[in-house]
Amino acid sequence: MISPDPRLTQTVLDACESLACYSEVAGEITRTYLCPTTRQVHAHLTDWASRLGMSTRVDAVGNLRSRLESRVPDAPTLYIGSHLDTVPNAGRYDGILGVVMGYALVETLAGQALPYSIEVLGFSEEEGVRFGVSFIGSRALVGTAEELLSVQDKSGQSVQDAVVGYGLDPQELLQARASGQALGYLEFHIEQGPVLQNLGAGLGVVSAIVGQNRLTLEFTGQASHAGTTPMYLRRDALAAAARFMVAAEDLARATPGLVATVGMVEARPGAGNVIPGAASCSLDIRHEHDDVRATALQKLLEVAQHEAQARQVSFRVVPHMTEAAIPMNTQFKALLHQAAGELGLPHPELVSGAGHDAQIMAQQMPAAMLFVRSPNALSHHPDEMVNAEDVTAALRVGVRFLEQLAETVGA
Amino acid sequence: MISPDPRLTQTVLDACESLACYSEVAGEITRTYLCPTTRQVHAHLTDWASRLGMSTRVDAVGNLRSRLESRVPDAPTLYIGSHLDTVPNAGRYDGILGVVMGYALVETLAGQALPYSIEVLGFSEEEGVRFGVSFIGSRALVGTAEELLSVQDKSGQSVQDAVVGYGLDPQELLQARASGQALGYLEFHIEQGPVLQNLGAGLGVVSAIVGQNRLTLEFTGQASHAGTTPMYLRRDALAAAARFMVAAEDLARATPGLVATVGMVEARPGAGNVIPGAASCSLDIRHEHDDVRATALQKLLEVAQHEAQARQVSFRVVPHMTEAAIPMNTQFKALLHQAAGELGLPHPELVSGAGHDAQIMAQQMPAAMLFVRSPNALSHHPDEMVNAEDVTAALRVGVRFLEQLAETVGA
Repeated sequence: MISPDPRLTQTVLDACESLACYSEVAGEITRTYLCPTTRQVHAHLTDWASRLGMSTRVDAVGNLRSRLESRVPDAPTLYIGSHLDTVPNAGRYDGILGVVMGYALVETLAGQALPYSIEVLGFSEEEGVRFGVSFIGSRALVGTAEELLSVQDKSGQSVQDAVVGYGLDPQELLQARASGQALGYLEFHIEQGPVLQNLGAGLGVVSAIVGQNRLTLEFTGQASHAGTTPMYLRRDALAAAARFMVAAEDLARATPGLVATVGMVEARPGAGNVIPGAASCSLDIRHEHDDVRATALQKLLEVAQHEAQARQVSFRVVPHMTEAAIPMNTQFKALLHQAAGELGLPHPELVSGAGHDAQIMAQQMPAAMLFVRSPNALSHHPDEMVNAEDVTAALRVGVRFLEQLAETVGA
Repeated sequence: MISPDPRLTQTVLDACESLACYSEVAGEITRTYLCPTTRQVHAHLTDWASRLGMSTRVDAVGNLRSRLESRVPDAPTLYIGSHLDTVPNAGRYDGILGVVMGYALVETLAGQALPYSIEVLGFSEEEGVRFGVSFIGSRALVGTAEELLSVQDKSGQSVQDAVVGYGLDPQELLQARASGQALGYLEFHIEQGPVLQNLGAGLGVVSAIVGQNRLTLEFTGQASHAGTTPMYLRRDALAAAARFMVAAEDLARATPGLVATVGMVEARPGAGNVIPGAASCSLDIRHEHDDVRATALQKLLEVAQHEAQARQVSFRVVPHMTEAAIPMNTQFKALLHQAAGELGLPHPELVSGAGHDAQIMAQQMPAAMLFVRSPNALSHHPDEMVNAEDVTAALRVGVRFLEQLAETVGA
């Protein structure tokens, strides 16, 4: 069993710190798709890769791809990665940690022979900031990026323009695909939530990336005078919406694993002494099982309909997004549990409530994620954190995972 | 028993229609405090008053005051009136109808001797539009207008400036007071709500003008990721506010006569996929009995506090307004009920959920209000309506009231 050099934890943290300096906005960490400082990030990591004996290229959509070729002819490839772009005013670890972990694990191998090649992936785009679409990077690997080339940003520049402007060739999209035999995809990522911290666990195995619906509920009643309209003659749109909001919280609390959020609400005309004639609110509902989510959504819409009718208020739904849940690969999950178990580390399983590149890669190969505790549950925030001990644990589990995977490939 | 000339109903409606032409904004009815078209309104009504043998003056704050002197020496005065100013883009009847009814009742008397004088009051300001304070007109009659002289509008002009600019003399405020013996104050006003329409009654006797509280409730929790934060680890400020909103509706429905309204709500940061870290909502709560209102408010704030604590959300209240209920005069109410009863008209009693000049006049003399049905429950709106038959009924009840009052004065 290989044990990672204890100094490697610091190498990982230092790399995240260094990459944080490459920002398009001074004083914060902001690195959107193919912004100029992407080159510095790539140069930093390419330099590290070459010291590890890896060959590196930038593919047609700007993904950084460093390969450690197996000495075995026609060996399959294990992909390890995450994304290098950030939200505006981001933290140091969201995405970045998963890419850096890939290089650190190759460094840990120290030239040890494996029956598979490793390709470390630094996806160019996951956050969807610039073009309003996410996963441009990973979609190129599974062959669904071409349809994104015509998407425009606010200035009218298309993805294709950005690609060409950066010096890349959209004609080479085909070569960006994950070709040859793929063993699977492994992504390390900060949890971005409070679950592991609350469980007292440094790492967690992701069971699935949740499916989700996002929609707006619109209630239309009749505005009237708050003083002269008795309760029994009101058509209060906000009163109906409030019942719905309470039902959403109640049902989510009563349904294991369900999260339901009303993040936006509006009442019109919006005066303290006028009964709202119109109200709208958002619903964001997520679960790892699509049937549980669908049933819950149905129940909540029935509540909204019922509470609206009871007040002579009309009700309609504007859907914005429906995404199915993506379960992680069973065998890869088992290897992660086994690795953590052998090392005496707690290894709870938890869902990912947010989207990740792994959900795209899962379309084409076994995919798994290992979450690293977020000590303050912050992400998309400059104060985003990881604990050094958790990075050490992730490196140990990662190396053990690679060893066990080698055994299954050899067998 | 005097019966009003059937043509007088049309006179009332025509007068309201004519006065609607005097607006400071073309194409709508907008007449704020002492705007130039006030002079045309005054001229129109002064002309009518002089045909009725009344003497008219404009007092120091711009109230139009037409007196029909009793032939009895040192006779007491009955005041009849309402306000002549309007909200922006108003209807034809709010306030105006009550002033016009005063002149129409004097016309009905057709010179009949009464043991009291009648003073018809066209208050210059009730709506609070220009200076953000209401009742400048009626407050001058009860001697509480002087403190308003320094209040400024948005342009920095004070009430005193407006008074002087209109050609009036603030030094004469003392003469604006209701002096001598006052029998009381009677105000006709559109209901501005749906209660009489719903009861199928054209008129209603006001029991009291409600007391009210207006306040803002502020909830502060912790914004976090809608996908990665499980229900049991949320500090959702809007979820607490939603429980409060439901409690407000429930308690008001369960408490006879109570109205509670949440007209404004806000959640921050206000994104569909972010749990609200802060939420605020308004509360407007009214009842004719102050103790009922105070108890209800207390209960609702306890609910808000409880629901906030249950979510580790902090809670605070920002009060904006507290006004005590003003009961109408028992003897005057009885006279109105008796008059309507004798005429075979339904005469339900109802509260006024909105403020009126009668609540100011009640500080100094017996005050009563007769509400006239609002067929579409609209007010502060160009489509504000009255039914001609209800105006006829109001004239008949008004005349009978004057006769009965004469009997009590004679006795």
